Amino acid sequence: MFVILVYDTAVERNPKVLKTCRKYLHWTQRSVFQGELSAAQYRALMAALGTVIDPEYDSIVTYTARSPEMVESATLGVALGGPGDIL
Amino acid sequence: MFVILVYDTAVERNPKVLKTCRKYLHWTQRSVFQGELSAAQYRALMAALGTVIDPEYDSIVTYTARSPEMVESATLGVALGGPGDIL
Repeated sequence: MFVILVYDTAVERNPKVLKTCRKYLHWTQRSVFQGELSAAQYRALMAALGTVIDPEYDSIVTYTARSPEMVESATLGVALGGPGDIL
Repeated sequence: MFVILVYDTAVERNPKVLKTCRKYLHWTQRSVFQGELSAAQYRALMAALGTVIDPEYDSIVTYTARSPEMVESATLGVALGGPGDIL
């Protein structure tokens, strides 16, 4: 599946969140990762993040699609990381 | 189409970026908006953002899918705004 992950976590937990996300996904922009994962990898990533974040304070949103072809990405301005067509 | 928009813009331009995004989309998380737009609305949003951001410094990434049914969203931790199933 194609996964877009956006995190909004406290500064002191960002390094662990980043390290965990980087194991599974590519960095796209300041607080965004994306990549292709199996369902098992997705569950493993969510479980790992669950041990890293404070669920009372932090927030991680994922968007998943069955395949990357179902989602088009585009960038306006600076293309920071990862793929994406420049508008 | 279903649109996810993530912005990474300089603090001084954030208010204008937020105001522009709010005209078209729902706020989901710190730097994320989502919503359903027509192709014309999407182009209008991108054009409006193009006049607001500094393309040498700021970055806006969008992910679009033909319909919201093609994308599943999930939240780990705090659900800040907008829809999304709690894991």
